[in-house]
Amino acid sequence: MHPMATPVLSQTTSARPLRAAVAERGKARVAAVGVTGYAGGELLRLLAAHPAVEIAAIVGRGRSGEAIGKSQPHLAELALEIQQDIPQDVDAVFLALPHGASAEVVAEIVGSGRTAFDLGPDFRLRDERSYPEWYGWDHPAPRLLADAVYGLPELHRAELAALGDRAGSIVGVPGCYPTATLLATAPVARAGLIADLVVDAKSGVSGAGREPKPELTFSEVNETVRAYGLEGHRHAAEIAQELGALTSTDPAAQLAALEFVPHLIPMTRGLLATCYIRTTRRVEAPELAELYEAAYGAEPFVQVVAASPSTKHVTGSNVARVHARVQPRTGRVLALGAIDNLVKGAAGQAVQAFNVVAGLDERTGLEARAIAP
Amino acid sequence: MHPMATPVLSQTTSARPLRAAVAERGKARVAAVGVTGYAGGELLRLLAAHPAVEIAAIVGRGRSGEAIGKSQPHLAELALEIQQDIPQDVDAVFLALPHGASAEVVAEIVGSGRTAFDLGPDFRLRDERSYPEWYGWDHPAPRLLADAVYGLPELHRAELAALGDRAGSIVGVPGCYPTATLLATAPVARAGLIADLVVDAKSGVSGAGREPKPELTFSEVNETVRAYGLEGHRHAAEIAQELGALTSTDPAAQLAALEFVPHLIPMTRGLLATCYIRTTRRVEAPELAELYEAAYGAEPFVQVVAASPSTKHVTGSNVARVHARVQPRTGRVLALGAIDNLVKGAAGQAVQAFNVVAGLDERTGLEARAIAP
Amino acid sequence: MHPMATPVLSQTTSARPLRAAVAERGKARVAAVGVTGYAGGELLRLLAAHPAVEIAAIVGRGRSGEAIGKSQPHLAELALEIQQDIPQDVDAVFLALPHGASAEVVAEIVGSGRTAFDLGPDFRLRDERSYPEWYGWDHPAPRLLADAVYGLPELHRAELAALGDRAGSIVGVPGCYPTATLLATAPVARAGLIADLVVDAKSGVSGAGREPKPELTFSEVNETVRAYGLEGHRHAAEIAQELGALTSTDPAAQLAALEFVPHLIPMTRGLLATCYIRTTRRVEAPELAELYEAAYGAEPFVQVVAASPSTKHVTGSNVARVHARVQPRTGRVLALGAIDNLVKGAAGQAVQAFNVVAGLDERTGLEARAIAP
Amino acid sequence: MHPMATPVLSQTTSARPLRAAVAERGKARVAAVGVTGYAGGELLRLLAAHPAVEIAAIVGRGRSGEAIGKSQPHLAELALEIQQDIPQDVDAVFLALPHGASAEVVAEIVGSGRTAFDLGPDFRLRDERSYPEWYGWDHPAPRLLADAVYGLPELHRAELAALGDRAGSIVGVPGCYPTATLLATAPVARAGLIADLVVDAKSGVSGAGREPKPELTFSEVNETVRAYGLEGHRHAAEIAQELGALTSTDPAAQLAALEFVPHLIPMTRGLLATCYIRTTRRVEAPELAELYEAAYGAEPFVQVVAASPSTKHVTGSNVARVHARVQPRTGRVLALGAIDNLVKGAAGQAVQAFNVVAGLDERTGLEARAIAP
Repeated sequence: MHPMATPVLSQTTSARPLRAAVAERGKARVAAVGVTGYAGGELLRLLAAHPAVEIAAIVGRGRSGEAIGKSQPHLAELALEIQQDIPQDVDAVFLALPHGASAEVVAEIVGSGRTAFDLGPDFRLRDERSYPEWYGWDHPAPRLLADAVYGLPELHRAELAALGDRAGSIVGVPGCYPTATLLATAPVARAGLIADLVVDAKSGVSGAGREPKPELTFSEVNETVRAYGLEGHRHAAEIAQELGALTSTDPAAQLAALEFVPHLIPMTRGLLATCYIRTTRRVEAPELAELYEAAYGAEPFVQVVAASPSTKHVTGSNVARVHARVQPRTGRVLALGAIDNLVKGAAGQAVQAFNVVAGLDERTGLEARAIAP
Repeated sequence: MHPMATPVLSQTTSARPLRAAVAERGKARVAAVGVTGYAGGELLRLLAAHPAVEIAAIVGRGRSGEAIGKSQPHLAELALEIQQDIPQDVDAVFLALPHGASAEVVAEIVGSGRTAFDLGPDFRLRDERSYPEWYGWDHPAPRLLADAVYGLPELHRAELAALGDRAGSIVGVPGCYPTATLLATAPVARAGLIADLVVDAKSGVSGAGREPKPELTFSEVNETVRAYGLEGHRHAAEIAQELGALTSTDPAAQLAALEFVPHLIPMTRGLLATCYIRTTRRVEAPELAELYEAAYGAEPFVQVVAASPSTKHVTGSNVARVHARVQPRTGRVLALGAIDNLVKGAAGQAVQAFNVVAGLDERTGLEARAIAP
Repeated sequence: MHPMATPVLSQTTSARPLRAAVAERGKARVAAVGVTGYAGGELLRLLAAHPAVEIAAIVGRGRSGEAIGKSQPHLAELALEIQQDIPQDVDAVFLALPHGASAEVVAEIVGSGRTAFDLGPDFRLRDERSYPEWYGWDHPAPRLLADAVYGLPELHRAELAALGDRAGSIVGVPGCYPTATLLATAPVARAGLIADLVVDAKSGVSGAGREPKPELTFSEVNETVRAYGLEGHRHAAEIAQELGALTSTDPAAQLAALEFVPHLIPMTRGLLATCYIRTTRRVEAPELAELYEAAYGAEPFVQVVAASPSTKHVTGSNVARVHARVQPRTGRVLALGAIDNLVKGAAGQAVQAFNVVAGLDERTGLEARAIAP
Repeated sequence: MHPMATPVLSQTTSARPLRAAVAERGKARVAAVGVTGYAGGELLRLLAAHPAVEIAAIVGRGRSGEAIGKSQPHLAELALEIQQDIPQDVDAVFLALPHGASAEVVAEIVGSGRTAFDLGPDFRLRDERSYPEWYGWDHPAPRLLADAVYGLPELHRAELAALGDRAGSIVGVPGCYPTATLLATAPVARAGLIADLVVDAKSGVSGAGREPKPELTFSEVNETVRAYGLEGHRHAAEIAQELGALTSTDPAAQLAALEFVPHLIPMTRGLLATCYIRTTRRVEAPELAELYEAAYGAEPFVQVVAASPSTKHVTGSNVARVHARVQPRTGRVLALGAIDNLVKGAAGQAVQAFNVVAGLDERTGLEARAIAP
């Protein structure tokens, strides 16, 4: 477990389900915990412009009293100040903390009836044994895992909507790699067509967080590319869990058919998952097109595109661009998913999930189009 | 065929084998044709510092009289001037021309007894039918293909050395993607262990050449990553040919087991091939390590490294860094190859092949270490 | 003059002043001419999200029938199609054309009573003699120059607002370098304190436009910095004109005291003007602070910051960040201005000027905060 | 003073002047202290290829026993191991340590008769009062400052050569900013033509060192530009000292006429100094050209170029490119200097100075041409 003291609710009170709170006042009062990193900054940027959100507090460990402009200079004019505790009268709490840091505080949040949207991994995995295996610590609140919902609306929309009627719900917002991978491959997985899957993923550096590690300085990252996490990246556990759920396969069996290798790319934002699928039978292009149209034709944030997607074309937006094709020579399905790792891969996804839970139009506050070039 | 006029030898003369020429004078007189692009510039940089090379001429189409500094400002002080024709008294000619442009001029070069080192694809493929299939034109000198040697010394050293005793030889210098891919996978291929192969390759932008295309401007390439050539990249033909040769497999069958997808990365130099190998049987780590040690233990330019290689660590050098490992969960072999696409992937490789043909120490003129950061 | 045919109004009609049109319908019907470049794309992104704008047409030369997604892939879902002519029933026309291309079409637009917002330089300079001098062509509609307003609201708000009551007005939207320079130095200039001025400006590559020139490819721009336009950049004329206007000085005299040297930086967006001011008398820090507070305290888009501004902190937003200080050793005033060259330096500024002319809140449609990192 | 323990000579012995040592054995035995940073890595790269150098030891504080490949992966094959102490039998010692860390150890080195080449600032300034003023610490060996030579061969060649005949000499190798600035402006300064000088400098990030500071991560540096050190950068002291020496002006007076503002550019290597000179009298282009020709016509590493220099064209080489011109409108002299900050701005310059002191051809080991693109 993460040893640092975590912020606590200043006092617990009875609370209503999120949907009712928003329906009554037209707005949710929210707190954001952990706002000094990149996902936290992006979350603030989105929440501050969200018409159905009132930012009641930004909360941080040991930075009480600090103006937001110190850690997020581009948001200085929000004129928010970090405080020690989560106010008692908020309807929802967003958390963007290092892994292991949110499990305990989430227990308190939901215990007092609030809804928690955790951008970290502490509530993404259903099986408590996954935490010691992939993260190296025992989950401090394992009984909460069963009720938490994996916050990928494209796969779990109904479950998320159902949370809106319950006080004390938890959304485990997906990681950036699983988001791009799952959106790229879900239509094929759901049809039971994946025999095995190689995911070669490329991420911008902001995905590695804001901690100034030696290998993340400009001089080390610029003009180079390398694979990392060869021994097994934690996000593989999420991918396997969700692909398993789509096909009623055991996640462990799923892992045996999944090769996931992330790469660090000299760019700040953007994530591309190139997915190589050996199929259980020969798939033809029209069938593949139908699967993707059926899956995403009505989705507000997934665009099935006719050519290889560029991450630049989704920068700053909550859109995922997906392209799938059958490779004639090999018969493989090639599926590509491109997202902005900090928006659809983190903060935007959290807001999208919030919208679903709160009964709002899913696009609320997420209408901004990509910025290019 | 490429319609542009190609430079011609000013006059043909009888010529000696390259090895004899170098042995006699200690130096080869060479001409470089096509020096205004990136591979050509890199070639000049290396040849100008090569102790056994005298640059007799730089030759270009329609740029006669132009100082080298105009197209290669960093090499202005070489004080070379582009001329129209290849001098008759050179021992070897290096060509860095667009595909289709060197086939005819090479015929003349070798007809007059000189040795040609062609950095383009015109003499890489053995089967003349590959040219209409992959490049869209019929090869104008198909009878020369059989005798040309694929200039990857690590796979064809003996054949290259044998060329040194023949006048009128042709070396088809490999492409950048095949170089990284073949060096990463050859030990496994040679052992007959590849059941199928996914190559996800990432290249710096200089690999796309110097032509100012709309999709190659800084604003379009920076801060983005995308796959390209999904419908089939020409370098797949080379990879299949060479992997086939290692295993006595028909290249066509080889292609059916090969998925090759290149990606454009926002960096100028560097190329990483991430190779995912499903093996014909379970391979264990010690066996894998032995295969690579046996293949590369004595190679001057292949370094087998213990961790995921970064392209930055070979920038400016002729070194290829290779890392191979067995993935415990899936049993796959993961093999990574990192090169500088303009050095080991083009000009350095040409010089290395030249050294072999000329009977020189293979490292001559290629001793420069990588520049980092 | 630019030789290409320019789009024309399909038919002229009587038209109302822009303010009246917006007041009546709550929206302006606008056309955007020249939408395939970077400023044009940014303009579309902003106009499409503007609550008081209806995009009646996008207009392009020789691209009639082309979907916007072809040139602006990130905006594909706008589902707009380029058409040949400007519809007759629009209230305002935005033009993002190469220099020399808008002068004639603007004459037609304003002749029919519409308001023109020209993002190019054709209506920025008051003195018709400046066009042959700086651009190399004679202005085809010199009589229109006197009435055009330089569209920098921070310096010309009242004049812009006055245009709202007149049919057939022209706004010459400032260039990116002048915007950053003028906002950084105007408070000192207006106080008559500038003895001479060195402006060392650094721009991202998108400022050079979208044309794929050899010197703008990724490989040429990445990992390098260079000055350009040493012989005199056209934007110097704008800077001198506007500084001259602030001090009732002849622009020619102003030019003699102005050194303006732009530099190309390996980044896509962002522009920083570092301004070195030798003052007419010693200025102390409190006086300087007062000048900037007086100038910008009430400005919605100029933020006076306490430390050296980073362009990253305004990316995607219409904000200019300005920092000014007295250098104790030399007595010089150092003034820095940072903008997003495509927003406050082009499309955002055009929309801001439009808001002023149309009588809207100046911030309408420009509320988006910067995206960082 | 820097509190960390510094490496010491294992035992002092009598030693010869460097020139005599090299003359006798054809090689100098050298130690390099502080090899884990960027300047240190570059130094090793150059020394390892230097035909008149034998690397006797690499020495580091607290990293004894560590293979060089750990900190400099691109140099792993050098197979050097960091040791605790400087061997007693070396002729020269290169130091690449943080400021304040070399002063004491240099005293020991020269006390034992060796020659020290210090890449840090501890022996660059002649006036001991400059250290508390600019660096915040008192110099521990102030009596050594008078005899140390500022290691810019283009300005101090004779003094450097004279050191070769003395045991126990010190060369204070210049900083990167002063190198580019002084080479760009020295011809004008020496002619007494500088009335005042604005230096707007742009540096790649490697110049800021290898320490992983929050503001130096890729995500913070990429896609942005900013000025720093507005309150006074330490390198201004060096520039003033050397310009003062050229004109017999007091450095303090020199500082009052010098505005030096460095900027951080999103690139790894390269440094451009754009120097704006108000002259004491009108200078015409031919006179200016003569000054630069006279100064640099015979210099091996300074190239006077006819157009604005790009840092890319000197990457990896020890060349400085200088361009000077008179600006017709303002009469100012504009002088630009471009270098690779780690080569001519640090390690290459140290080797060049070593060559001069050792009586070698100044180009020895520095022949490598720039690598572009």
